[in-house]
Amino acid sequence: MEKQQCFPTIWKMKLGKAEQLTPHHFFGGLENEQLKNMDEQTFPFAEGAISAKSTSRGFLITLPLGQDEKLYGLGLQLQSFIQNGKRKRLRTNADATNDTGDAHAPVPFYVSTKAYGILVDTSRCVEFDYGATKRVYSEKSDRNEKEIAIRTETLYSEERRGSQVSIFIEGVEGAELYIFAGESMKQVVESYNLFSGGGVLPPIWGLGNLYRSYGPADQGQVESLLEDFQKEQMPFSMLGLEPGWQSRAYSCSFKWDSNRFPNPELLMQNVKRAGLELNLWEQAYVHKTADFYEELLPYSGDYEVWEGLVPDFALPEAREIYGRRQGELIDTGIGAVKLDECDGSDFTGGWFFPDFSQFPSGMDGEQAKNLFGAMVQRTIQQQFERRNLRTYSQVRAGWSYGAPMSFVLYSDLYDHGQFVRGILNAGFSGLLWSPEVRQCGSGEEFIRRMQTVVMSPLSIINAWMVPNPPWKQYDIDQNAQGILLETSELQDRCRELLQLRNAFIPYLYEAYARYEKFGTPPFRALVLDFPEDEQVHAIDDSYMMGDNLLVAPILNEGTGRSVYLPEGDWYDFWSGTRYEGKQHIVAETIEIPLFVRAGTILPLASNQSITKNTIFDLEIRIYGRQPRKTYLIEDDWISLNYKNGEQNDYELAVVEGELVIPKMERYRIHSQSWFD
Amino acid sequence: MEKQQCFPTIWKMKLGKAEQLTPHHFFGGLENEQLKNMDEQTFPFAEGAISAKSTSRGFLITLPLGQDEKLYGLGLQLQSFIQNGKRKRLRTNADATNDTGDAHAPVPFYVSTKAYGILVDTSRCVEFDYGATKRVYSEKSDRNEKEIAIRTETLYSEERRGSQVSIFIEGVEGAELYIFAGESMKQVVESYNLFSGGGVLPPIWGLGNLYRSYGPADQGQVESLLEDFQKEQMPFSMLGLEPGWQSRAYSCSFKWDSNRFPNPELLMQNVKRAGLELNLWEQAYVHKTADFYEELLPYSGDYEVWEGLVPDFALPEAREIYGRRQGELIDTGIGAVKLDECDGSDFTGGWFFPDFSQFPSGMDGEQAKNLFGAMVQRTIQQQFERRNLRTYSQVRAGWSYGAPMSFVLYSDLYDHGQFVRGILNAGFSGLLWSPEVRQCGSGEEFIRRMQTVVMSPLSIINAWMVPNPPWKQYDIDQNAQGILLETSELQDRCRELLQLRNAFIPYLYEAYARYEKFGTPPFRALVLDFPEDEQVHAIDDSYMMGDNLLVAPILNEGTGRSVYLPEGDWYDFWSGTRYEGKQHIVAETIEIPLFVRAGTILPLASNQSITKNTIFDLEIRIYGRQPRKTYLIEDDWISLNYKNGEQNDYELAVVEGELVIPKMERYRIHSQSWFD
Repeated sequence: MEKQQCFPTIWKMKLGKAEQLTPHHFFGGLENEQLKNMDEQTFPFAEGAISAKSTSRGFLITLPLGQDEKLYGLGLQLQSFIQNGKRKRLRTNADATNDTGDAHAPVPFYVSTKAYGILVDTSRCVEFDYGATKRVYSEKSDRNEKEIAIRTETLYSEERRGSQVSIFIEGVEGAELYIFAGESMKQVVESYNLFSGGGVLPPIWGLGNLYRSYGPADQGQVESLLEDFQKEQMPFSMLGLEPGWQSRAYSCSFKWDSNRFPNPELLMQNVKRAGLELNLWEQAYVHKTADFYEELLPYSGDYEVWEGLVPDFALPEAREIYGRRQGELIDTGIGAVKLDECDGSDFTGGWFFPDFSQFPSGMDGEQAKNLFGAMVQRTIQQQFERRNLRTYSQVRAGWSYGAPMSFVLYSDLYDHGQFVRGILNAGFSGLLWSPEVRQCGSGEEFIRRMQTVVMSPLSIINAWMVPNPPWKQYDIDQNAQGILLETSELQDRCRELLQLRNAFIPYLYEAYARYEKFGTPPFRALVLDFPEDEQVHAIDDSYMMGDNLLVAPILNEGTGRSVYLPEGDWYDFWSGTRYEGKQHIVAETIEIPLFVRAGTILPLASNQSITKNTIFDLEIRIYGRQPRKTYLIEDDWISLNYKNGEQNDYELAVVEGELVIPKMERYRIHSQSWFD
Repeated sequence: MEKQQCFPTIWKMKLGKAEQLTPHHFFGGLENEQLKNMDEQTFPFAEGAISAKSTSRGFLITLPLGQDEKLYGLGLQLQSFIQNGKRKRLRTNADATNDTGDAHAPVPFYVSTKAYGILVDTSRCVEFDYGATKRVYSEKSDRNEKEIAIRTETLYSEERRGSQVSIFIEGVEGAELYIFAGESMKQVVESYNLFSGGGVLPPIWGLGNLYRSYGPADQGQVESLLEDFQKEQMPFSMLGLEPGWQSRAYSCSFKWDSNRFPNPELLMQNVKRAGLELNLWEQAYVHKTADFYEELLPYSGDYEVWEGLVPDFALPEAREIYGRRQGELIDTGIGAVKLDECDGSDFTGGWFFPDFSQFPSGMDGEQAKNLFGAMVQRTIQQQFERRNLRTYSQVRAGWSYGAPMSFVLYSDLYDHGQFVRGILNAGFSGLLWSPEVRQCGSGEEFIRRMQTVVMSPLSIINAWMVPNPPWKQYDIDQNAQGILLETSELQDRCRELLQLRNAFIPYLYEAYARYEKFGTPPFRALVLDFPEDEQVHAIDDSYMMGDNLLVAPILNEGTGRSVYLPEGDWYDFWSGTRYEGKQHIVAETIEIPLFVRAGTILPLASNQSITKNTIFDLEIRIYGRQPRKTYLIEDDWISLNYKNGEQNDYELAVVEGELVIPKMERYRIHSQSWFD
């Protein structure tokens, strides 16, 4: 067991004989000034507290687990929040409907309320046992001889839990751990994100609203949709095309279908003229009709998916060949992609290569499965970066080292509560997640889901299954039949929500800029901001958007929910009413319950369209008597030049009761409101 | 690759270096005269058609898969029936809600409509890929360049499927296959069951009705329940007690709780006097308060489950120590047990030992997990057998070689359609399954579920969650509050169904006797009886009970369903109406649709109570003009003496238009009905 400090907050621990083809090998080792300059921390475990051994089937690592600490993380776990008492085997899987560790984007990283984090550097289906069981005799507990467990609650009780975390990797002889320490759990997450390469800063339009159009739509239908958006003032920034744009899918030809889309250049012009960016659906499975099929063949795995080659993205050759076509599409003006079905849905009738696949790089199917999403993301992102462009794309799989990847996760699942939990859990593991809106059972459900998605990393309506926008008919069957709603009420409310999203873009852009620079997740669980307040530890249905906004979506029918407000004063965003913290309040509203922290200077934009040329018109809201400084970040909105310092950091502050407004190029302040 | 013929219908194929602690090692190698005498078959694969290789992660076996053959099996798969196009990783798991191979009782055995079967002799979480994917270039198919898959149906289409079965076992260097051939798929299943040791013959009362009483019930409440059964003429043969009978659960003390049950002997007398057998709940996790805890300790795994020891049932010492207490309970008169939570619910907050456990026999956690249910079954069954007694118990886990085990599987899941599919799928793999009835959303649902369960391997009402019998109130909350239904209508219909079950016991006893002797599953999919009729290949919602009865439960609200009748004439059991086969009919009835094959001589009993002393009073129904011979089987109903030939096989036949009735001791025929 070798321990080596890599950064003031990070140690590497080598246990046994580690594998070569790990995430760190492919994605790690990035330099980061911020990380070097963090305050020195002490190693969070006592000497000898971590142990490891080879077993007949693999490698077992054990770490201590205190009765009073709580664990979070493991990536996009939609079914659970606090991980204590659970056993999970991480496996990339599209059908992650059980709380077993299967996930679109499982991440072998967890954090503790004791302000440490553990990253297991593996691409294996690693198993985590968080005190779910106890070793015989090693962990005695009170044995209450009279207790009869006949109720589920008793069976799940905490006192039955063990005091060890066990990490088991099958078929290996060792592994490397990265151990993170911090002043707080939030700082641990920040260290992990910086260690991954820092967070992502989206292009400005990426923070706007995305509409994915009907699967079978042709060019004419897409163009008339664009016209409707303009005519009906629906403020979208991105338009997504589904598989039908390609001449062959699934698997993909990566070529326009000349029947459906006879003039892609004209389409692109029209999209840009309408002030939108185009997002194209794809899958990383390459059909024989793709121009680069034969060239890719030697750099592919030995099993097909949907009759397509699976590129071995661990090889630079595969990344180049696949990336070249991506680059061509970017050169025609594509702003983003939707990277579908890269999440190992191998139990859905073989929508994935098997674990026993082999890839020419030496990766086996299990490794390739877990790293596949991350590797495709990097391959595509590099093509944007070579052109000095950012993207803000969609993807259905990820693993560790996700923070710098300009992709937001999504799912075919559709439980509203799980979708909200996903926002929180993604924030522990360097991931971004979107609770996308599709069809709904009622207009009310449509609005409730819209309220959540506009307050999430990616604001998207995914209408791939319906010919008409869901605000004209939320019901999938009636929509298909062209039976539309009689009033525009739903559309009007939907428009307001899309505008609400746009209003928050300057605030969000600053939050993402801090994500990029300091690793602070822009969307996160309350426990990261209020670790001392035990009442927030289990809250998985409200979250922080940036530092100052508490978002508490209403998940079900009805207009009310209970919201816990942590320490400090809070203002209802809609009414301006002030509440003291450390209490539960009942929010009764048709809006989404939003609470602004006292002391916030909140910029709100009134822009209808968000493009690379946008200059923001702002209302500034000032909450409480002791406003903290806040910042507005300005750059060219779309290139990577900010990495070379081409970015302005404007401070907004209240001095002697007056808002001091710096001179800015891309922000104009038209009004101020004060809340007391 | 070594191939060796073991029996006229069975070959063993040794591929690479096989593991030692396999199911065959523990459960196989039984002699069977019937198997020796089967007709010689030819090996079902061409020379070189089966291949195998070691990969970096395990061992991969491939077999050919024809486009026109269909595969079934893999144990208790509740989510799917035909396995073509699926990839499954078998893992014993209580929360088997996805179609991934997780199951209470996965079995590494499958059968083909081409009349062969493959048993993989492994206790590992083996993966089966049934043509889900294709190898690159090895399996060319038509590549339709214009096809755009935008609908789910297209994506699942058969033409995308590969022509190989792949079997992958991680972390091993080889495996043994047993390959079965037969005249028909049914004969293949029979061979597999005989190879496992032959089917089970339950004690006669095991074919009656079981009522599991309320969890917290005490002796007084249980005794008054018995009185109610007698007073209200509810014909039960077995009474089950839930965890509350023990002084400690979960894990178990295996001792009576002296507060709840001050006089177990008296209880036992009362149960027997009422004509019932007692079934006790247990878990194979041994709490410190069990008398044999210290003795068992050295023969246990290194992790606790619910603070209890996990016996290493691979060791004779563990079987003896655990079995001794079972034997003591049997000596007090216990007829059966319910063996709960032995099914690796390791993702439910650690309700199981981890895969990285070690057992003193050398078994690791993965092996122990998959064999655990089978091993506990054998341990308990041996205690009954030593006392020359049969049992018919309940269990929640199983694996291969299950046919001789006197246990019926059950689940906490509750989907009616899946429960019916379970009956069919269990029949391919030497398993028995019970779609138990618990609480219901409506009286109609209660009756529909009751209709299914009385036509299943074990007829059980599991009322562990409700203080009053569900026929007095099907709603769980109202039941708990003592708000009972105002009329006895539901109870009357329930009583009729329990009587219907009893009526079929002579018919079932004969079917089980054939299961025991010839391996013919008493409950099975239509495809086993009518393999030539392609219309039945996908039917997973109706099934054969014995040779002559087609059962087609109504799964949803309403009174109708479509039923496909295979070749031959069929008679509606209720109306006597005759239908021609090879057609779909609509069954409209408040009863369960049942169809009797033309030519059947069907015995129906009118007995209210089923005990070891039962003499059956029979009505004989004769369907059609050319009745086939049928049999009534008679023995002492409860001991193993039938294995020494102490069993009578009475032939019933129609000779010159008259039913010829043999002289029998335990059957009396009081009437005959003829259907034409």
